[in-house]
Amino acid sequence: MQEIKAYIEANRQRFLDELFELLRFPSVSADPAYAGDVQKTAEYVAQKLRDAGAEQVEIYPTAGHPIVYGEKIIGSDKPTVLVYGHYDVQPPDPLELWETPPFEPTVRDGKIFARGACDDKGQFYMHVKALELMQATGTLACNIKFMIEGEEEVGSDNLPAFIKANKERLAADVVLISDTAMISLDTPSLETGLRGLSYLEVEVTGPNRDLHSGVYGGAVANPITTLAKMIASLHDENNRITIPGFYDNVAELSDAERQALNQAPFDEAEYKADLGLNALWGENGYTTIERTGIRPTLELNGIWGGYTGKGAKTVLPSKAYAKISMRLVPNQDSDEITALFKKHFESIAPDYVTVKVTPHHGGQPAVTPTDSPAYRAAERAIEDAFGKKPVPTRGGGSIPIVSLFEQELGLKTVLMGFGLDSDNLHSPNEKYDIANYFKGIETIPLFHKHFAELS
Amino acid sequence: MQEIKAYIEANRQRFLDELFELLRFPSVSADPAYAGDVQKTAEYVAQKLRDAGAEQVEIYPTAGHPIVYGEKIIGSDKPTVLVYGHYDVQPPDPLELWETPPFEPTVRDGKIFARGACDDKGQFYMHVKALELMQATGTLACNIKFMIEGEEEVGSDNLPAFIKANKERLAADVVLISDTAMISLDTPSLETGLRGLSYLEVEVTGPNRDLHSGVYGGAVANPITTLAKMIASLHDENNRITIPGFYDNVAELSDAERQALNQAPFDEAEYKADLGLNALWGENGYTTIERTGIRPTLELNGIWGGYTGKGAKTVLPSKAYAKISMRLVPNQDSDEITALFKKHFESIAPDYVTVKVTPHHGGQPAVTPTDSPAYRAAERAIEDAFGKKPVPTRGGGSIPIVSLFEQELGLKTVLMGFGLDSDNLHSPNEKYDIANYFKGIETIPLFHKHFAELS
Repeated sequence: MQEIKAYIEANRQRFLDELFELLRFPSVSADPAYAGDVQKTAEYVAQKLRDAGAEQVEIYPTAGHPIVYGEKIIGSDKPTVLVYGHYDVQPPDPLELWETPPFEPTVRDGKIFARGACDDKGQFYMHVKALELMQATGTLACNIKFMIEGEEEVGSDNLPAFIKANKERLAADVVLISDTAMISLDTPSLETGLRGLSYLEVEVTGPNRDLHSGVYGGAVANPITTLAKMIASLHDENNRITIPGFYDNVAELSDAERQALNQAPFDEAEYKADLGLNALWGENGYTTIERTGIRPTLELNGIWGGYTGKGAKTVLPSKAYAKISMRLVPNQDSDEITALFKKHFESIAPDYVTVKVTPHHGGQPAVTPTDSPAYRAAERAIEDAFGKKPVPTRGGGSIPIVSLFEQELGLKTVLMGFGLDSDNLHSPNEKYDIANYFKGIETIPLFHKHFAELS
Repeated sequence: MQEIKAYIEANRQRFLDELFELLRFPSVSADPAYAGDVQKTAEYVAQKLRDAGAEQVEIYPTAGHPIVYGEKIIGSDKPTVLVYGHYDVQPPDPLELWETPPFEPTVRDGKIFARGACDDKGQFYMHVKALELMQATGTLACNIKFMIEGEEEVGSDNLPAFIKANKERLAADVVLISDTAMISLDTPSLETGLRGLSYLEVEVTGPNRDLHSGVYGGAVANPITTLAKMIASLHDENNRITIPGFYDNVAELSDAERQALNQAPFDEAEYKADLGLNALWGENGYTTIERTGIRPTLELNGIWGGYTGKGAKTVLPSKAYAKISMRLVPNQDSDEITALFKKHFESIAPDYVTVKVTPHHGGQPAVTPTDSPAYRAAERAIEDAFGKKPVPTRGGGSIPIVSLFEQELGLKTVLMGFGLDSDNLHSPNEKYDIANYFKGIETIPLFHKHFAELS
């Protein structure tokens, strides 16, 4: 414990400098224009793994962006921890809303502002530094394998094939991921569930060309108006999703489970103030914690059509588009929900338009057991580092990979995240608190210690 | 008549070449980036007016784009025709849908494809060539004044001040405008009414920043979904506009007037086939001709919000926007309708969002008398040139200027347009038929002749 803190103190500035260097790479996986930067990022990650003492470090090319692998095996009698993370980031736009450039990390009152600071560069890099620390202090207690991918933000399309092809190499006892949030440093928490995802793009076509809204308006259905009506119909007056069959497989929690979940501290006034909102919204009959944790959702992620430039253009457009994603909970199936959405959206299209529904990517919801040695090791590590037992929570986000690990490698996952909900993930001014970064580097070696003991 | 045709034949190629040169100027008034091109266009128009024999030619600067004036006065005993037109054009986007570049005029089976070919460069330039022709053939029968502006496509914001300041100079007996469509060369028509316009932009704000749709989705209202619901509510199940008071001042036509209007040839199957539509849409109880001519409309001209780039981004955006315009009919008032929309849109905003409504521009609806010497002169000119009496029609578009002329100069307007509804105004692949261009140049001198006789 003491030597861990001492080592962190002695290397504090370098640990920050290395993260900043990593954050300067614009590794935006969604936009092909950044492909070269994504590759350079992978090379930097591989080098840093080697520097930290990892062996067999390799950059595996895929049909998309590469996967970085590295390992440190200390003995076949030791349990093995497979660390997963991703070095790709969300697109930074809208750029004009960033206070400082997204790829020029800047510290303001103890927080690192940069795209990827928390999601997930700042979090997976804690594990790289924890490896260095355990090596240097001779406290390595488990075998460690790293699999850091570059396509998490675009659906990890090429990860399943890589895993299927490398089952031996990836063999482990547990998967450890830091890509989620905790309630706060005062109220540490561990996520025990993640929502799944179904992400689609829809295209509504009216007339075969853009028309003059004065000449044709009123006689030809406007695809924007039509799309708006279709979107409006996707939630009913109780803010429930209207897609037939959507809720059929949703696992309802017991009153006891719901009560436990609502134990987590939540201040609605503070929540609203932070978001600048007068009122919240959501499915009737559920609390905000439940709406974001155990209930499925349907969100509009983007919409566009017609003239969106400066000034006025009196056009009746030919097409309108939207990006729509649904968060799924146990036991909904991503492919099934995608199919239900497609069928429903096509069925509600009036005969004066045609619609095209294109699935982008999905992921299965997952729940992690709270009675496994790995989960208990995480609990103890956090208790040692924070002086408090972590609160179990249900995360609203999705890490599709979790269910993939279970299917392909038969491994459970521990979600030991050190971010905060206020870190602006996927938003302008994403940040990660320096205190959380170092608290994570301090906690991870303790996880390895406890996991070795409990296994 | 013969000498007119002979002169056109002799100068046919040059008349086309000059129009093509005019069409090559990207005089997009909506986008400040083109301001320099708009200025160059004004200079070209001024030069061509001089070449055609106009005097007192001047380019009048305004707070926006300049106005070109020129005149040819042959005698105080002659009636005076004020020709209005505009040399600015709509933005060309979406560029990828143009078969040939918008500012490189190209002829395909007798049609000139270019932005502004019909609206309004190709049409106002007919009057410039008609002046040249009447000068050359000594057939000038009326005094002519030209006022060609550069802001029609953005609401003619600076024209009222110019007119107020130049009433003497603009004094005339009638305004003649070629900026509308006729049914076809086989069925010539004259527009006797134009719809007014109210154009607004709306902004819906939810949370004060873009959020992660997994972390906040389901608990915070999505501004895109909210905007969609608000838009969907603007039309009822009969496709009538739901804004309280919207229809209060709409002039209902008599059954006789509606019957007359529906005399105009209309082939619904052909109309749908041309637009690639399975079904039409519109206010219940009215025909397509009525929906686009005598009924007011509300159209979405553009919508945008959230992530609209490549791939997927799971964002719950802070803001969503739309451009909305309403076409107005007698006796609706543009400012009053704009106020009604603003009040209504703000009133239907749920408490979990804030909305901002910004008026862009508007224009009053107008009806032109069919018993005036000017209208009869136009009828006879068309009958001479086409061998058929023109059918009176109600145009769906708006030329706000028409009501302005009536207010400020006490002048009625004759809308002698030679375009076609199929000319793709405001759309990719805008075109103007070469035959219509020359038919217009042939008809205009006949209008001057008849107007001089009838006045």
